[in-house]
Amino acid sequence: MALHQPLRDAWTRSGSMLCAGLDPDPARFPAVVHGSVFDFCRAIVDATADLVCAFKPQIAYFSAVAAEADLERLCAYIRSEYPHVLLVLDAKRGDIGSTAEQYAKEAFDRYGAQVVTVNPYMGTDTVEPYLHHPDGAVFVLCRTSNPGSGDFQNLRVDGEPLYLHVARRVATEWNEIGDCGLVVGATYPDELREVREVVGDLPLLVPGVGAQGGDIEAIVDAGATRDGFGMVVNSSRAILYASAGDDFADAARAEAARTRDALRARAPR
Amino acid sequence: MALHQPLRDAWTRSGSMLCAGLDPDPARFPAVVHGSVFDFCRAIVDATADLVCAFKPQIAYFSAVAAEADLERLCAYIRSEYPHVLLVLDAKRGDIGSTAEQYAKEAFDRYGAQVVTVNPYMGTDTVEPYLHHPDGAVFVLCRTSNPGSGDFQNLRVDGEPLYLHVARRVATEWNEIGDCGLVVGATYPDELREVREVVGDLPLLVPGVGAQGGDIEAIVDAGATRDGFGMVVNSSRAILYASAGDDFADAARAEAARTRDALRARAPR
Repeated sequence: MALHQPLRDAWTRSGSMLCAGLDPDPARFPAVVHGSVFDFCRAIVDATADLVCAFKPQIAYFSAVAAEADLERLCAYIRSEYPHVLLVLDAKRGDIGSTAEQYAKEAFDRYGAQVVTVNPYMGTDTVEPYLHHPDGAVFVLCRTSNPGSGDFQNLRVDGEPLYLHVARRVATEWNEIGDCGLVVGATYPDELREVREVVGDLPLLVPGVGAQGGDIEAIVDAGATRDGFGMVVNSSRAILYASAGDDFADAARAEAARTRDALRARAPR
Repeated sequence: MALHQPLRDAWTRSGSMLCAGLDPDPARFPAVVHGSVFDFCRAIVDATADLVCAFKPQIAYFSAVAAEADLERLCAYIRSEYPHVLLVLDAKRGDIGSTAEQYAKEAFDRYGAQVVTVNPYMGTDTVEPYLHHPDGAVFVLCRTSNPGSGDFQNLRVDGEPLYLHVARRVATEWNEIGDCGLVVGATYPDELREVREVVGDLPLLVPGVGAQGGDIEAIVDAGATRDGFGMVVNSSRAILYASAGDDFADAARAEAARTRDALRARAPR
C-alpha cells in the first residue's frame, strides 16, 4: 500500500508530475564526480528534489557496473532526506511466485523502494507477492515507450489490443489486491488516452519524455486527471546529462524545472 | 551465439537433459555451510556437474540477500571448472534497448553467463541487445510453469493463444538475429507439444519438474527432439533441498541422478 496515498501527497506537495530517472552511466559522468555512481546520483537528487514527485533509479545501470552498494546508499539517502518524494525502483521484474517473493525482498526490504515496476506476461500469481508485501506496490507494464512495443502489446484480442486487456485487469482485479499503477509510454499519446479511458484515475508512470522524444502537451492532454495530476512523467537522460561539465547539477536542475513547468502549464487546474 | 552449439555439446557429452537450478535460500541451508551462499552452491555444483547439461542460477535469490559477489564467484567457478556445462542466468529481463544493453553487460560480461532468460512483452528491439552481444544468447519466456501463466499467455489472437505467436516469432525472426530458445513450463505438457510442433528443433528450457510437480514422462514425450535431446529440463528446490542435513550434497546428487535417469529412460534414442 505504498503508492496511491504517498503519490497523492507527493503530487500536491511538489505541484509536479515530473519524475527524475536515475540511469547512471559512468562513461557520461562529469570529471568532478571521479566516477562515483553514488556521488553523481546524489548531486542530481539534491539538485532536483523540490521539482519532482518521484525518483526512479533504473537498477540495470547499477547492476551492469556492480554498484549495488551505491544503489543501497542512494535509496536510503532519498528516503531519509526527501521522504515526500516517491521512490520507484525500475526493475521490470516478472517471475513465479516463490521467486517474486525474493524480488519483493530486494525492492522493498533491501532497497527500501515504495514501488517497483513489474512485467505482467506471467500472470496474476506472479505479481501478488509484491502486493502482499506490507510495504509493496507496483507499476505494471502496459504499453511501453520503445519502438517495438507494439509487436505483442498491439496484438488484437477480442477486438482490442492486448495492452488494454492488461490495463483492465490491473485496474480491476490487481488493484483490489494492492496498490497498482500502469506504465504507458509518452511516445504513444493516443494509446495513453485509450488507457486513461479504461482505468479511471489509476496512476500512470509515463516514461519517454526527454531523450525518447515524447510530446509533453500531447501526453498531458491524454493522461492527466481532472485534478491536474494522475501521471508520473519520467525523464532520465535529458536531465542527467544536460551538461557534461562540472555544472551538471545546475544544468540538470534547469532541465528538470523546464520539464516540470511544461507539464504544469498544460495540466488542467 | 552462445546457445545452440554449446548446448548440443553439453547434451552429447553429459547424455543428460537435466539442468540444476541454483536458487539458494539461506533459511534452508544445512548447518555445515555456515550460511555461505557460495559454499552451498559450490557443493551442489560439484555434486551434480557430471549429471547435468546446464546450471541455472536464479538471480533473485542472490539479489534478495545482497549476494552478488557470491554469484560472481559461482559463475566464474562453473565456467572454469565445468566449461562443458551450459551456464544460464535466470533473470527474466525485459526493458528498452538502452537499458537492455546494461542488462546484457550484467549477464554476459559481469557474470559470464552464456544465456540469459528474457521476457518478450516489450518486443523485438528490447531483445536485440542480448543477441547482438558477441557472447550473448537468450531463452525467451513463452508458456511459463506457474498457475496463472494463462492469464495473458492463453489469450486468443487470430484463433491461437498468445504464447504460440511468441513461439513463432522467436523461432523465425529472433532466432535469425542470434541464438534463441524458449521457456515452456513442464507443468503444461500439452502446450509444450504445441510449441514443439511450431518451432522445429529449437531448444526449450523446461522448468517445473521437482517441487513444481511437472510429469517427466509427459514432457519428454511432448518436447524431446528425435535425437533424444532438445530440452533443458530444470529442477531447483527438489535437488537443492533433498536433505536438510550435512549429507545435502550427496542427497542432491542422488536426486539429480534419479531425475536424469528418468529423463533418459523416456527419451527416444
